[in-house]
Amino acid sequence: MKKTFFLAVLVLNGLTSFAQSNDEKNIKLFYKKALTDSKCYTWLEYLSNDIGARLSGSQNAQLAVNYTKTQLESLGLDKVYLQEVMVPHWVRGEKETAFILNGKVKTTVPICALGGSVATPKTGLTAEVVEVQGIEELKTLGDKVKGKIVFFNRPMNPENIETFKSYGACVDQRFAGAKEAAKLGAVGTIVRSMNLRLDDFPHTGAQSYGDLPKEQYIPTAAISTNGAELLSATLKNNPALKFYFKQSCETLPDVLSYNVIGEIKGTVTPENIMVVGGHLDSWDLADGSHDDGAGVVQSMEVVRILKSFNYKPKNTIRVVLFMNEENGGKGGAKYEEVSKQKNENHIFALESDSGGFTPRGFSIEADDANLKKIQGYKDLFEPYLVHSFTIGHAGSDIGHLTSKAIVKAGLKPDSQRYFDYHHAANDKFDAINKRELELGAATMTTLLYLIDQGGIVVN
Amino acid sequence: MKKTFFLAVLVLNGLTSFAQSNDEKNIKLFYKKALTDSKCYTWLEYLSNDIGARLSGSQNAQLAVNYTKTQLESLGLDKVYLQEVMVPHWVRGEKETAFILNGKVKTTVPICALGGSVATPKTGLTAEVVEVQGIEELKTLGDKVKGKIVFFNRPMNPENIETFKSYGACVDQRFAGAKEAAKLGAVGTIVRSMNLRLDDFPHTGAQSYGDLPKEQYIPTAAISTNGAELLSATLKNNPALKFYFKQSCETLPDVLSYNVIGEIKGTVTPENIMVVGGHLDSWDLADGSHDDGAGVVQSMEVVRILKSFNYKPKNTIRVVLFMNEENGGKGGAKYEEVSKQKNENHIFALESDSGGFTPRGFSIEADDANLKKIQGYKDLFEPYLVHSFTIGHAGSDIGHLTSKAIVKAGLKPDSQRYFDYHHAANDKFDAINKRELELGAATMTTLLYLIDQGGIVVN
Repeated sequence: MKKTFFLAVLVLNGLTSFAQSNDEKNIKLFYKKALTDSKCYTWLEYLSNDIGARLSGSQNAQLAVNYTKTQLESLGLDKVYLQEVMVPHWVRGEKETAFILNGKVKTTVPICALGGSVATPKTGLTAEVVEVQGIEELKTLGDKVKGKIVFFNRPMNPENIETFKSYGACVDQRFAGAKEAAKLGAVGTIVRSMNLRLDDFPHTGAQSYGDLPKEQYIPTAAISTNGAELLSATLKNNPALKFYFKQSCETLPDVLSYNVIGEIKGTVTPENIMVVGGHLDSWDLADGSHDDGAGVVQSMEVVRILKSFNYKPKNTIRVVLFMNEENGGKGGAKYEEVSKQKNENHIFALESDSGGFTPRGFSIEADDANLKKIQGYKDLFEPYLVHSFTIGHAGSDIGHLTSKAIVKAGLKPDSQRYFDYHHAANDKFDAINKRELELGAATMTTLLYLIDQGGIVVN
Repeated sequence: MKKTFFLAVLVLNGLTSFAQSNDEKNIKLFYKKALTDSKCYTWLEYLSNDIGARLSGSQNAQLAVNYTKTQLESLGLDKVYLQEVMVPHWVRGEKETAFILNGKVKTTVPICALGGSVATPKTGLTAEVVEVQGIEELKTLGDKVKGKIVFFNRPMNPENIETFKSYGACVDQRFAGAKEAAKLGAVGTIVRSMNLRLDDFPHTGAQSYGDLPKEQYIPTAAISTNGAELLSATLKNNPALKFYFKQSCETLPDVLSYNVIGEIKGTVTPENIMVVGGHLDSWDLADGSHDDGAGVVQSMEVVRILKSFNYKPKNTIRVVLFMNEENGGKGGAKYEEVSKQKNENHIFALESDSGGFTPRGFSIEADDANLKKIQGYKDLFEPYLVHSFTIGHAGSDIGHLTSKAIVKAGLKPDSQRYFDYHHAANDKFDAINKRELELGAATMTTLLYLIDQGGIVVN
């Protein structure tokens, strides 16, 4: 009771400025609340184990909309509502099969269709394989890939400390490899999974044929890193080997879905909006506990923590659970579209979409003045071992926001294990540590609170 | 080749001082080597999966001595040798059984004997239970625990960001609970596992009867956190319930074992010794991949990395794989004893015994001047996201060292998951992430290198 009172008094005493020592005390309360009395882990357990995989357009995605809306309604926010958005509806179909045909030796390897891919012929597809390290090398080959399967095998660079950097430098072969190979007459592509580890999980993810005419679409799949190593080694001995794969995925008509939105109205400048969010959809191979169940429940926890202290924000705080980040980004785009129509002004947006691991800091999109302002809060984060406040990509969903003066931040959890799970069948609830998830939520609450209190620099 | 040459040139150019920019380059090489061409993960796989649990005095502990000695010999160090040490030999015997007897309802719960405990009678032990939150509360009960089983149920405090702090504030009930309960006439003790998570793993660990006469020893076991919650809840409804447990552990005569030591002779002040180490022994319930297989292979990797660059240290670098940290500390004590006899001078000791997770910094035992000196290296660690350089416990094995001017440091990995595995049956190889392990080794190499180059402050 005493603590609730403490924050309430702060609010009553005036919202314009607080001594740093009060910030320290309040932040301590946020972390204590998250570590001793959170709901995020229970929410995630439901999303992951009771609902499961939530690919856009699926029934599970709709169940996740219903569930999170109900849970947000239980928090006593000022408003909870759904925002309509049409989303793609791609389905995997039967489990894929693939093998290497090395003379008479047939070796099965784990693959999965990439999101948005077309199917192979019903009996599968067999062709010789051309291995390349990326799209650039592919382009030098010209006609040589005609009638072949192009095998993109550039691994993620293990030297980068931040694994997202290695992902960013590799993912083009997954996203655009099929399109580029199709232009040269290839009949299919196989892409090394975006995974720093050697294991047997194929990792799916978005791909796009761009503006290719539909009749030129070719099937594309990811192969596990162990499978990629095997295929590459076998190719060295026998460049004439053949690869077989079969997949029956297809794109169905778009489906009506929703962003789930909750709001605490600002008490001083309610017209200034601060967004905190993650994405509700996941890939279909697992329940997506890290990507992005964690971000969803952490964002919900942020407003739960603030409400639990009866915190009255200066600015309007909006929790947004975006639909369709994985294969279309339609939810983020729709949110921005509606916001534009309403002439809304966003001053801050915070996204959690990098896994539920121990929080290390934030990846920030801001001008120098605002970056420095956030870096000025470093000492307040130090007791919680949150150290990194650097310029970088904040998040795909909030990437759509275009308010004139807006600061964006992405929670930056420890990234070492993220690509062990990313878009693969092992991104499941048991890969989540409760405390790490909670620490992330408290860290997000803290930054949102500090920016609500301290504002942003507007030039 | 170029890189080897680079460091060799540095060495030839003189060992007294290097520009910061050279440190930066060398540190980059250490991390690159660790992340792209390490052996630590392969070594750990052998220790964990081919050898397995390595409790002091066991055949596996001897296999680990043999294996690591052979591996160190392959590194081209100046010297590799074994140091004799007599160690306790406690064996668990048959798997323990335990149940709550609540009237006619019998509920099995997971327990494990604590290290050093005596057995129950062959048919087991049944008694009423008195729950306490710790030794202090126990002492207030006096005679009331006579003939009873004392149940120590103080949980680890979830509020601390650093989980070792919560461990330190709780572990007395495991280490000394039985001794104190025996003094008051209790017939046994059951201790809540030192685990922040609610799960079904009982966590073993050292306990001591101190100077109690042997005939007063009472059996003591850990219960899983879920088991502890159930026992506590059931007790509230029925304070007269009984608890049954059976264990057949015993302490056999001491066994001859070894510390494994490797050395790179110093080129400027070889009489000044820098130790880097971890402990070879583990508990018996699992292969101890985090505790402390990780520390062992990281310490070996440190000297491997330095040797791979043909680094010529100013001071003598000694990798020490200590025996018997878990239940006796005899290896650490013996190392110090021999060192004293030889009048050796240690200037620095570095231990890794806090798990193989992402490195966050170091826990340092040093005077102000040396602490500041180490904190002066912060910027060099920043690119590797290693941020925390604070006063704290450095390590049990190096804790024995008493050289007059010595700086001690313990690698501080992220601690959130550590007590999920500590001393339990799930501390296995699959709980280790290769990159996190490698980053720890590179971080240790970096500090050792900087202190070798920069020396310590001697008053």
